[in-house]
Amino acid sequence: MANQRRKFLKNSLLLTGAILIAPKVIGIKEKRSHANHNTGAAKLKLSFKPYTLELKHVFTVASNSRTTTPVMLTEIEFDGMVGYGEASMPPYLGESQETVSQFLAKVNLSKFSDPFGLDDILQYIDAIDSNNTAAKASVDIALHDLVGKLLGNPWYRIWGYDPLKTPNTSFTIGIDTPEVVKQKTIEALPYKILKVKLGKGNDKEMIESVRTITDKPLYVDINQGWKDRQYALDMSYWLKEKGVLFIEQPMPKESVDDNAWLTAHSPLPIIADEAIQRLADLVRMRGAYSGVNIKLMKCTGMREAHKMLEFARAFAMKVMIGCMTETSCAVSAAAHLSPVADFADLDGPLLIKNDVFEGIKIIDGKVTLFDRPGIGVVKINP
Amino acid sequence: MANQRRKFLKNSLLLTGAILIAPKVIGIKEKRSHANHNTGAAKLKLSFKPYTLELKHVFTVASNSRTTTPVMLTEIEFDGMVGYGEASMPPYLGESQETVSQFLAKVNLSKFSDPFGLDDILQYIDAIDSNNTAAKASVDIALHDLVGKLLGNPWYRIWGYDPLKTPNTSFTIGIDTPEVVKQKTIEALPYKILKVKLGKGNDKEMIESVRTITDKPLYVDINQGWKDRQYALDMSYWLKEKGVLFIEQPMPKESVDDNAWLTAHSPLPIIADEAIQRLADLVRMRGAYSGVNIKLMKCTGMREAHKMLEFARAFAMKVMIGCMTETSCAVSAAAHLSPVADFADLDGPLLIKNDVFEGIKIIDGKVTLFDRPGIGVVKINP
Repeated sequence: MANQRRKFLKNSLLLTGAILIAPKVIGIKEKRSHANHNTGAAKLKLSFKPYTLELKHVFTVASNSRTTTPVMLTEIEFDGMVGYGEASMPPYLGESQETVSQFLAKVNLSKFSDPFGLDDILQYIDAIDSNNTAAKASVDIALHDLVGKLLGNPWYRIWGYDPLKTPNTSFTIGIDTPEVVKQKTIEALPYKILKVKLGKGNDKEMIESVRTITDKPLYVDINQGWKDRQYALDMSYWLKEKGVLFIEQPMPKESVDDNAWLTAHSPLPIIADEAIQRLADLVRMRGAYSGVNIKLMKCTGMREAHKMLEFARAFAMKVMIGCMTETSCAVSAAAHLSPVADFADLDGPLLIKNDVFEGIKIIDGKVTLFDRPGIGVVKINP
Repeated sequence: MANQRRKFLKNSLLLTGAILIAPKVIGIKEKRSHANHNTGAAKLKLSFKPYTLELKHVFTVASNSRTTTPVMLTEIEFDGMVGYGEASMPPYLGESQETVSQFLAKVNLSKFSDPFGLDDILQYIDAIDSNNTAAKASVDIALHDLVGKLLGNPWYRIWGYDPLKTPNTSFTIGIDTPEVVKQKTIEALPYKILKVKLGKGNDKEMIESVRTITDKPLYVDINQGWKDRQYALDMSYWLKEKGVLFIEQPMPKESVDDNAWLTAHSPLPIIADEAIQRLADLVRMRGAYSGVNIKLMKCTGMREAHKMLEFARAFAMKVMIGCMTETSCAVSAAAHLSPVADFADLDGPLLIKNDVFEGIKIIDGKVTLFDRPGIGVVKINP
């Protein structure tokens, strides 16, 4: 049965291919209707609904603690096909279900008849208002899912990346008491790299608690928590001795010179997070950091993230593909970039109790892609 | 009949879509064989054959004259589908049918089972030897044609660009006597912009000859022919008065400071050609020029050209999509980038008598794309 289905599919795809290639030159309008389900009448329809992610553990970073994360789930429908998207709004970043709803209510996709026109559509979305990067990403991801489905292929494949080259993901250990940190480190057994949050005054205690349990490689993420560059430099030497591979966003993003000074002097790479949100920031700040943590929610989505990734590679900057607390929807979307990233921090769905999608998996610590088309997710909790 | 075919296609594509989306998570190997004709047994097979383009007119630029251009036509076959590519070797650039044959003989694609792995395959091609950019482009273009056909869509669409936004192409007037220049300007009636070659000592005479016939906007291309920066600056003011829009590669590419000085002082944009061949050159030289002429034969093909285009946009540099003397194969490949370029100089096939392909057309002066999949060419002269 499976064999027969495969054969039918193969034949119908080959036939499709043959017919698509055969015609002589004809007008764009006429042809487009064959190849791409676009009958001219089809419209892009956006819908969205708020949802609250429940975290498995209280999560503490340098700036705050929380037990839930608000998200917005989006869908874009076109000619009977649906693309899924998501915005995640950790409270300290300025977006909320209200702001995202307000933004998405302004989006009018009915003027676009072709979902493939990502360059124009996403420029239009970006120009609706400044900021609102998660809201913009929720449209970008749904469109990419839709277009990937229309192309019948996953995005890593459309982008030409080898899905087997994905990195291991880190698993995040929030700031907490030594006992809780040790317990979380034990629970993180399946993951090969840990990302330890620092920057609340107990930096050495945090690392030493982890090191009583495991000698796995570590990343540390300061979330702008350090204020003194000499302290940061001293810590970078100490952390290197403790088996840390890099330091993420050590000092406030506004302290450009201090972060650049640390990058020039530190024995560990210094990775920008808050300081580099979008492509323009990457162009402007590239001298000040060794690398960048690219997150869809910061940079408006997959199209800009892909540009940032290729741009960073051209500048020999390190790239981490990161996420917020998100469902498997946005995290799967980001994972398509990971085969050519140096590091991945795609543990979002591992931290929540009520995922809405099935998507990428973390298998033996490694980001594992599947070749479902688009962003490759299936809705499991409608 | 056409209607029925359309309906069948639509149904089979929708069915394909539905089946592709339905399965639960399964292994990559197993799934890939459904979606992408890749049965595991299929191999990539490269073949190539030399061809000589016959020019309609003797063509003279600052460095030489010629009546023919040697090219190499490539094909990559995979599972019954064929992608077309081409290398063009104008004699002053250092590649020839011999060097391209030697390079292509070293290419072993049989180790790649998936044509979609462009990142790996093209890194392998690039690492075979330094330089040989046209030879590399001939593989890149054929692979893109193949992958686009497997995706059932043209590359401008896969890249998300609007095919209706293509620019007008310029038509090139080589260096010659006033009589011939006037005659060529008359023959160039269908084109809305002329690109006038300068740099052999008769600069003003060339422009004045054109201006006796037409007041169309002009580009000028010096091909490194000017040696004195003050002369270049004086000419830039004079050319601006004559309705010239930009100056391409005024001084030798090695004269970085002189070209940068001219860019800083000239009233016209200064566009790099010989000075910026690949992405790394663009990163290094971006301060010295207002923009870049991206050509597939210089930069190893469509994948790197696409990166250069997006990179230049991020730096607010002007982009021209250019070509060598080429058939409609390589020129059509380049044209997929033109919807987001500022300028196009895609007159290659217009200058030759014995094209091998039907591809893009220049209609009413404008680069006109069609939505045949891949690079969108049909072989007409096998």
